[in-house]
Amino acid sequence: MIVAIQGEAGSFSHEAAEGVAGSELRLLPCRSFDGLFEAVAAGNAERGVVPIENSLAGSIHENYDRLRAQPLHVVGETQVRVRHCLIARPDAAGARVRKVASHPVALAQCRRFFAENPAVEPVPAYDTAGSVRELMNGTLAADAVIASALAARMYGAAVLRTELEDDPENYTRFLLVAQEPSTPAGPSKLTLTFTLPNSPGALHRALGVLAARDLNLTKIESRPLPGRPWEYIFYADVSGDPRDRVREALAELESLTRELRVLGWYAAGGDQLSAVGREPTAESVPPRRRATPR
Amino acid sequence: MIVAIQGEAGSFSHEAAEGVAGSELRLLPCRSFDGLFEAVAAGNAERGVVPIENSLAGSIHENYDRLRAQPLHVVGETQVRVRHCLIARPDAAGARVRKVASHPVALAQCRRFFAENPAVEPVPAYDTAGSVRELMNGTLAADAVIASALAARMYGAAVLRTELEDDPENYTRFLLVAQEPSTPAGPSKLTLTFTLPNSPGALHRALGVLAARDLNLTKIESRPLPGRPWEYIFYADVSGDPRDRVREALAELESLTRELRVLGWYAAGGDQLSAVGREPTAESVPPRRRATPR
Repeated sequence: MIVAIQGEAGSFSHEAAEGVAGSELRLLPCRSFDGLFEAVAAGNAERGVVPIENSLAGSIHENYDRLRAQPLHVVGETQVRVRHCLIARPDAAGARVRKVASHPVALAQCRRFFAENPAVEPVPAYDTAGSVRELMNGTLAADAVIASALAARMYGAAVLRTELEDDPENYTRFLLVAQEPSTPAGPSKLTLTFTLPNSPGALHRALGVLAARDLNLTKIESRPLPGRPWEYIFYADVSGDPRDRVREALAELESLTRELRVLGWYAAGGDQLSAVGREPTAESVPPRRRATPR
Repeated sequence: MIVAIQGEAGSFSHEAAEGVAGSELRLLPCRSFDGLFEAVAAGNAERGVVPIENSLAGSIHENYDRLRAQPLHVVGETQVRVRHCLIARPDAAGARVRKVASHPVALAQCRRFFAENPAVEPVPAYDTAGSVRELMNGTLAADAVIASALAARMYGAAVLRTELEDDPENYTRFLLVAQEPSTPAGPSKLTLTFTLPNSPGALHRALGVLAARDLNLTKIESRPLPGRPWEYIFYADVSGDPRDRVREALAELESLTRELRVLGWYAAGGDQLSAVGREPTAESVPPRRRATPR
């Protein structure tokens, strides 16, 4: 399966793509998220893996905007625990580490490591996996890198230390996009966006449509609408079962909201939100459910 | 007024502090957000300026966590439009720009500039204002920087071009924290956090308490609770008027939620959420209301 990601091989998006396609994965790295969506829309990739929220950094608004703006369907979800490793050249594994390069966000997530090793200098770089490639090429102005174990494996580098991150509760959730909608067989989930005027009770009435049918809400988030003061866009994830009740609820929501969009109705890949705090295991999230049924 | 910020002078936090304290500002730059909260708690600063959400990047979870964990009060809010400038040394203002340094997030927000100037190389750096200081010191491996106009002014650098950012709808909202709660005189706002079990209708019931009293919700966001599967924390901003109805609503919410916390009840600094998309002006947001009344 050809899966498009944004960024380089060895990134956490690559790890998410491996979780989806396993050993059948053929990775299509794209320079930008727009390029990723275009690759799927043009049929150059069967799936796109799109990061949508991180347990520390929150929702990725620009990818919600892209999902709303284009005709692709969300057909699945998966999540990756962000584990930062200290990586060096295999021939330098015994040497002293003086300079450690990585993306500033990754460096900031490993403050304890730098506090415990005050002689080690953090060096800002463009990204995590790309720094490993440069380390191995000999073009990096540092002698170690903070990146994923996958990046180390890809470029034949050595992992000196794992779990360098201060907060182990660092998960990124990815949505899978495709040209055609999915037809989930088991427990399912909907990702919706809708807009509401800023008036008392507007959201309460909309959520009443779900509550009256015992449909579970696993995410809700408001966001001001750029350029349209007094209006909000909402992101919501809702249990997709039972299906007839969901169809009724969607019909009723149409009349209470503006611009209601079902971005996708897909197999629930283990409840991402409640799964944060425990790692999905082979037992809790069967591979067939994490991937997208066809 | 001594105001603590995280990061360097010349940052967007500094700009927010100027908006609050004006010419009376005495800035206390802190290395970390924990340091900022400690400075206010210890009385070394009268106010702390804490970024809480950005219109592109979303809510800053770690600062919500700090607000919940410590005893300070939110006493006001302000927002800053993130405007990126191209900055050079005044003596090099006519020279060709070849390398432009900034924080990778700022570089990524100025993609159009780099696309239109393919000969210009972006160089990752720790932060925006610090890069201007290094540029002026002669210790920066670049001949220009992307940072705020304030940073240019602070270090005596020249602004070559303004509004380099791709998206003009780039606002950061800051909360002001202090040891003592505020007693807002005019229109007011509450920032709340509470937890709810993941059960159908739980949020709908909680929001019903506000809707029944015509209280307006200007922000709602769910977040999975780390380490506690099936439970969620919610961030909410609610109209604080009329006060007796708010007090009733809070009492009723106590019985429907777990760990309800009022982080602050403060003068509404113009409705941040609906104000996104138009810039607050001296007319629309009187200075006394943006600052915290005592």
